[in-house]
Amino acid sequence: MANRIVTLTTDFGWSDPYAGAMKGVILSLAPQVTLVDLSHGVAAHDLLDAAYTLAQAYRYFPSDTIHLIVVDPGVGTARRPILVRAGTQLLIAPDNGVLSLVYDQEPELLVRHITATHYFRTNPSQTFHGRDVFAPVAGWLAKGVEPEKFGDPITDFVRFAIPKPKAAAGEVRGVILKVDRFGNLITNLTIADLPTLAPDAPEGRAGFSLTVGKGAVTALHRAYADAAPNEVFAIWGSAGYLELSANRASAARLCAAERGAEVVVKLAS
Amino acid sequence: MANRIVTLTTDFGWSDPYAGAMKGVILSLAPQVTLVDLSHGVAAHDLLDAAYTLAQAYRYFPSDTIHLIVVDPGVGTARRPILVRAGTQLLIAPDNGVLSLVYDQEPELLVRHITATHYFRTNPSQTFHGRDVFAPVAGWLAKGVEPEKFGDPITDFVRFAIPKPKAAAGEVRGVILKVDRFGNLITNLTIADLPTLAPDAPEGRAGFSLTVGKGAVTALHRAYADAAPNEVFAIWGSAGYLELSANRASAARLCAAERGAEVVVKLAS
Amino acid sequence: MANRIVTLTTDFGWSDPYAGAMKGVILSLAPQVTLVDLSHGVAAHDLLDAAYTLAQAYRYFPSDTIHLIVVDPGVGTARRPILVRAGTQLLIAPDNGVLSLVYDQEPELLVRHITATHYFRTNPSQTFHGRDVFAPVAGWLAKGVEPEKFGDPITDFVRFAIPKPKAAAGEVRGVILKVDRFGNLITNLTIADLPTLAPDAPEGRAGFSLTVGKGAVTALHRAYADAAPNEVFAIWGSAGYLELSANRASAARLCAAERGAEVVVKLAS
Repeated sequence: MANRIVTLTTDFGWSDPYAGAMKGVILSLAPQVTLVDLSHGVAAHDLLDAAYTLAQAYRYFPSDTIHLIVVDPGVGTARRPILVRAGTQLLIAPDNGVLSLVYDQEPELLVRHITATHYFRTNPSQTFHGRDVFAPVAGWLAKGVEPEKFGDPITDFVRFAIPKPKAAAGEVRGVILKVDRFGNLITNLTIADLPTLAPDAPEGRAGFSLTVGKGAVTALHRAYADAAPNEVFAIWGSAGYLELSANRASAARLCAAERGAEVVVKLAS
Repeated sequence: MANRIVTLTTDFGWSDPYAGAMKGVILSLAPQVTLVDLSHGVAAHDLLDAAYTLAQAYRYFPSDTIHLIVVDPGVGTARRPILVRAGTQLLIAPDNGVLSLVYDQEPELLVRHITATHYFRTNPSQTFHGRDVFAPVAGWLAKGVEPEKFGDPITDFVRFAIPKPKAAAGEVRGVILKVDRFGNLITNLTIADLPTLAPDAPEGRAGFSLTVGKGAVTALHRAYADAAPNEVFAIWGSAGYLELSANRASAARLCAAERGAEVVVKLAS
Repeated sequence: MANRIVTLTTDFGWSDPYAGAMKGVILSLAPQVTLVDLSHGVAAHDLLDAAYTLAQAYRYFPSDTIHLIVVDPGVGTARRPILVRAGTQLLIAPDNGVLSLVYDQEPELLVRHITATHYFRTNPSQTFHGRDVFAPVAGWLAKGVEPEKFGDPITDFVRFAIPKPKAAAGEVRGVILKVDRFGNLITNLTIADLPTLAPDAPEGRAGFSLTVGKGAVTALHRAYADAAPNEVFAIWGSAGYLELSANRASAARLCAAERGAEVVVKLAS
């Protein structure tokens, strides 16, 4: 137990003292813990951005890592704090749907409502349960308290649905899930949605045309550097989704597209 | 001593190599140390912002944590480096007032002028005492050198006063101390200044009207989510101060108010 | 080996999940490792900015620290992954020149082409070798695998030249290498280029006039705080280069100068 890992994912930004206060609370309870900043740059109050960010990182950690997610616009209301066992990982978060993508990925799930308030800081503030509720639970958990001590399992936890692609004759419609720092437009389209475009499809891969925002895309490349300057192209990204990218430039800017934008793929027959 | 914690609070930002160089210097002296980024996003040269950020985080850390604060516009001048024992915590900083809020919170204070230059890096640069003076002192301290080895106590350390609220008949005037990432406007008003508005005051809490910037506030809520869209309201924040907030929106933008703005609270008689 | 240090320098920014995924992969292989964020704020795709950032920080770390640099616009092409022994430090990066400033500083260099693909994650993505190639190599190295197991030495590694100052009669021309968060303009001019302006030169240091952008500079100060408001002055910076700075203000803004701007120094005869 000496070296439990605790990761932090919040929308606190990188300037304010909030993440630091949480780190202090955790280390006060479990000084041997390895703290890892996943991201404090989640868009403020944005549950989908938090869910996406977490889902792309949490599963790479060793077994029994504790992931603390504090994107919590409902702080101070009746929304529940939860402790989740998802496969090999443990997660602590408000029950507001921020773990929805984790729920989608993990067949083995056990969600507990954290009710053991004696593990909280005394007189929790109305506005900062990250420090007063979630961080101490992470600290006690890292210290070796068993998950069942924190509360009973529930099944009615909050879960939102990620938009699903829609397929019609020769056409698949998806949506932009995320725009990253480079301006890559990450869609919700997987290889299962577009099997004829799979990376291991035979040479002479089927043709397609894709539109998003003002962008029209007909090329599927295997590397950013294969593209011409200012060419927007499709590429299978590291999250398992089709992405629209440009070589050392922002596809988001070139296409004038943002998160939520519709993506239409017409497949060659 | 194997696992001393060293926290870092600077105005170096998150892009430049300065914080990384400091981490290297500390780890070279004390490889077992646990490094914690409190914030590198303090506004450049802004001693009040640094003091506020530090004050909201440092006291949550375990005893004997070493806090390194490098917001140092006077680097290279005669301003002194100091090592402070404040309650259970140790702090290393330039003597420019950046610890003023720590001094306000801690009855047990011992401030030393760091004069033992043999603990510095040789030939310290004129512009980066974070790397050449403060980081090595933190490293040696983490390694087990006793505080008294670094220099003698002083009592004439620099201390600035945080603006104090002013009370008149039926009115209290304060100021915005900090605007956080969410646009919360954090005032310098505490429950002691506004006892009739205390969170545990009986139902039928006294009425009030508050103005800040272009904002007029008459509601005191217990949770962000209790507010209507674009409503600016007061809430007792996690730092112990009254805050002006909006539900998933920026009170700073809605009120067109910044740090330093005056806050006037008129209390119902 | 229990406490190997691994630093991360990337252009992933501080919001996206990419750095977090890399941390997970490293910790999965080597849970005892001390992870250090050097910077994730390198300008996107900017090899010079990455090279500069790394060069100013890596050498302060203890022997056998592993530095992972992922600024990799050529990901997915034939560009090689490399593992470098440079003096006491180990570095892992794409072979795209990002280590050029390390090569300039270290007389003892051994560069290996990483070819042992069994240390990579299976089915590496086309776009994220940070997670699938570089992070696992760092993890195995931290775990104790010897550098020679990863591949054979090469000598044709990619190296770009940092612009060198040009001296003519009574004049030295340089260039701005970096603008930091404070707006300091960091030139490529060293004391060797301007010996008459050395910090330890006798009183009555030779005069000079320097131009950069719209700025004209004739003062060389020893501390930021020695300058008048909005005065731009020269100062020997912590990286060993001459810098143009202003006291609590941005020299970059005052001079309207950016990276790459020419600097002309005329020396008094």
